[in-house]
Amino acid sequence: MTLDEDLADGGPAAVRRARAWLSRAVEPGTIDFWRFVDSAGPVEAVRRLRSGSAPERIRGLVGARVEQDESLADLRRAERCGARLIVPEDDEWPALPLHSLTLATSDEPDDPRAQSTRTLALVPPLALWVRGTGRLDELADRSVAIVGSRASTAYGEHVAAELAHQLAERGWTVVSGGAFGIDAAAHRGALAADGPTIAVLACGVDRPYPAANGALLNRIADSGLLISEWPPGAAPHQHRFLVRNRLIAGLTRGTVVVEAAARSGAMATANRARTLGKEVLAVPGPVTSAMSVGCHELLRDREAGATLVATAAHVIEAVGGIGSDLAPPPDRPASARDGLSDVATRVLDACPVRVGVSPERLATVAGCDVLEVLRVLPALELADLVEWTGTGWRLSPPPKKGEVPRR
Amino acid sequence: MTLDEDLADGGPAAVRRARAWLSRAVEPGTIDFWRFVDSAGPVEAVRRLRSGSAPERIRGLVGARVEQDESLADLRRAERCGARLIVPEDDEWPALPLHSLTLATSDEPDDPRAQSTRTLALVPPLALWVRGTGRLDELADRSVAIVGSRASTAYGEHVAAELAHQLAERGWTVVSGGAFGIDAAAHRGALAADGPTIAVLACGVDRPYPAANGALLNRIADSGLLISEWPPGAAPHQHRFLVRNRLIAGLTRGTVVVEAAARSGAMATANRARTLGKEVLAVPGPVTSAMSVGCHELLRDREAGATLVATAAHVIEAVGGIGSDLAPPPDRPASARDGLSDVATRVLDACPVRVGVSPERLATVAGCDVLEVLRVLPALELADLVEWTGTGWRLSPPPKKGEVPRR
Repeated sequence: MTLDEDLADGGPAAVRRARAWLSRAVEPGTIDFWRFVDSAGPVEAVRRLRSGSAPERIRGLVGARVEQDESLADLRRAERCGARLIVPEDDEWPALPLHSLTLATSDEPDDPRAQSTRTLALVPPLALWVRGTGRLDELADRSVAIVGSRASTAYGEHVAAELAHQLAERGWTVVSGGAFGIDAAAHRGALAADGPTIAVLACGVDRPYPAANGALLNRIADSGLLISEWPPGAAPHQHRFLVRNRLIAGLTRGTVVVEAAARSGAMATANRARTLGKEVLAVPGPVTSAMSVGCHELLRDREAGATLVATAAHVIEAVGGIGSDLAPPPDRPASARDGLSDVATRVLDACPVRVGVSPERLATVAGCDVLEVLRVLPALELADLVEWTGTGWRLSPPPKKGEVPRR
Repeated sequence: MTLDEDLADGGPAAVRRARAWLSRAVEPGTIDFWRFVDSAGPVEAVRRLRSGSAPERIRGLVGARVEQDESLADLRRAERCGARLIVPEDDEWPALPLHSLTLATSDEPDDPRAQSTRTLALVPPLALWVRGTGRLDELADRSVAIVGSRASTAYGEHVAAELAHQLAERGWTVVSGGAFGIDAAAHRGALAADGPTIAVLACGVDRPYPAANGALLNRIADSGLLISEWPPGAAPHQHRFLVRNRLIAGLTRGTVVVEAAARSGAMATANRARTLGKEVLAVPGPVTSAMSVGCHELLRDREAGATLVATAAHVIEAVGGIGSDLAPPPDRPASARDGLSDVATRVLDACPVRVGVSPERLATVAGCDVLEVLRVLPALELADLVEWTGTGWRLSPPPKKGEVPRR
């Protein structure tokens, strides 16, 4: 069926085909174009573009692609690789997380020259090509982005994999970009926990990129999802990565930056998350590592409002429900000294190690009254901190191996 | 001359001797005792204690030590090791930084039972035993505390030494506690830059502790200062370290925690600095290191208001004058792509690597008008990003070694 015949129907199939056509006709990320489709509806939008009756600026955005139609071929190509097109009209559309993008777009001015440029605009996608068996809306509901440098260190990859593994174990979906380095480590960590993971690509979902991650991306498609705004076969042009980053931030409740060089792409994703009202989380690292400079800058920047995360519990505390999912404070070995009064502490410190001394001597060394010394000694003895030698008081012998040392 | 005869004089020598006596008679850190001395004056305070006319609670704090007098011996012992007693009545007293402690003490309630305990109370010192040639008030004016774990890692010691070295080079005094680990590394870093450094001790300034740091502490005394609230010969009882910590926080403009285990002494010092209105700074580290857990907790705690510092410039930005001493943002290599328009970026990404293509083909791939392609190509050619092969446009050859790669 030709595009124009299919559109004449106007039903769900027409909507899907119209959005398939739009996803190839125009580069995603333009505020004006999204507004045009949003107000005219996808079917009418395509009709006006094809007939030349769309506003000149909108036609200019499509340019030479307006004459082409690969929509049916794209839908079939998707089907062949186990993918489908999800459109805003579908139940499976992740409307809740992506609402942040709709809100951001509604704040943009009317004048196209004053609007955010395409690589920065936080505009919703027109449609999403999705490869995999999970339901996108359900997987995105409790999801966290883990992003970072492609030129990561062993430390960064270890932390990314560990965080992803623990998040996956606790039922969180790990979202990343399928790239080398931190992205791949995060996906692998989630897969190792048999957890769902989503790779948001800047190319067609049938086209593994980077090629060396092909096996990883196929595994993600088997148990999670590969998603893209670009139709099957689309090439991973560099500018598409920048446009793609807003989806990673928009789909998730928060973005964890594990390792990032100064002013890097991962930091751009984090800044987008902040603008969208999502949590910005950063993993610290050695200050001697160039790959942690970006994370540390995020944590130093009061406006960025980034939260330091060192564990999956920290991440869940930040993105989880308010009042639930609180991370436990770190433990410290309890000591028998904890909770001693000031005088008791001073008397304890005044006790010699070997030869016992009199309470009068303890009072002089500790700088308190003999009566006070006599008052606290029984408690110290009960706590096994001091002992009576028969002629005087001294410290109890040091703790055996395996016990907590006193100092 | 006996104590009572010397006090009868009432002049500066009497004041000094009275404070020398007080520094041995009572453990520092008690709010009530400091208030008693502050209101009666040091000479009258000693008289009343010796005659038994001081309030009972105040006499109880001195206990068995009231009968003793080693004040003259202490002053002579100090002189023999190149030390002196500095009292609040002296010009050299670091009144400005220590004013924070006076303010904190004025906030304490009247009821002794409701006051902060001695190891927590932020009370000013009654006097300071000082060994070394520098002027304490001048050295403390532009000073930063660098503190941390005794059980530090090589990473922590490296960072502590590096920060201290750079701070010393820029005229800042590095203050620490003379202990193993981070403290020693900080002192050594400052000494290596021929910078002044102050060790605040929990024992007599004539008594190097820990003994293994003896050579280091002697070097500090040669070019910086050893200071202590306790008289010569005083032993480093454990409770004294807790009381001492408030001086490290109080003397300096800010406290940098380099490495700290969860809920450790260094964190206590940092919390004291915060209460005193000083800057709390923390160095991050690998999340896999137990020695960085305390630093990360400080940085996660919104109330602590700790600032992440990775360089000496960060530290100086925090403790330096407002508007001056700003740390430069981290650099990123500039790229010829920076500043390209959206269409130019898309056209650039559409260019093939080998065989040149027509502007019409570029327009189709880039998703824009041919006229737009023709408009941006000259700029891309000028920037050496694309080239004309004679039959079409393609990317310029990759940059030579040493140039910035495109990707």
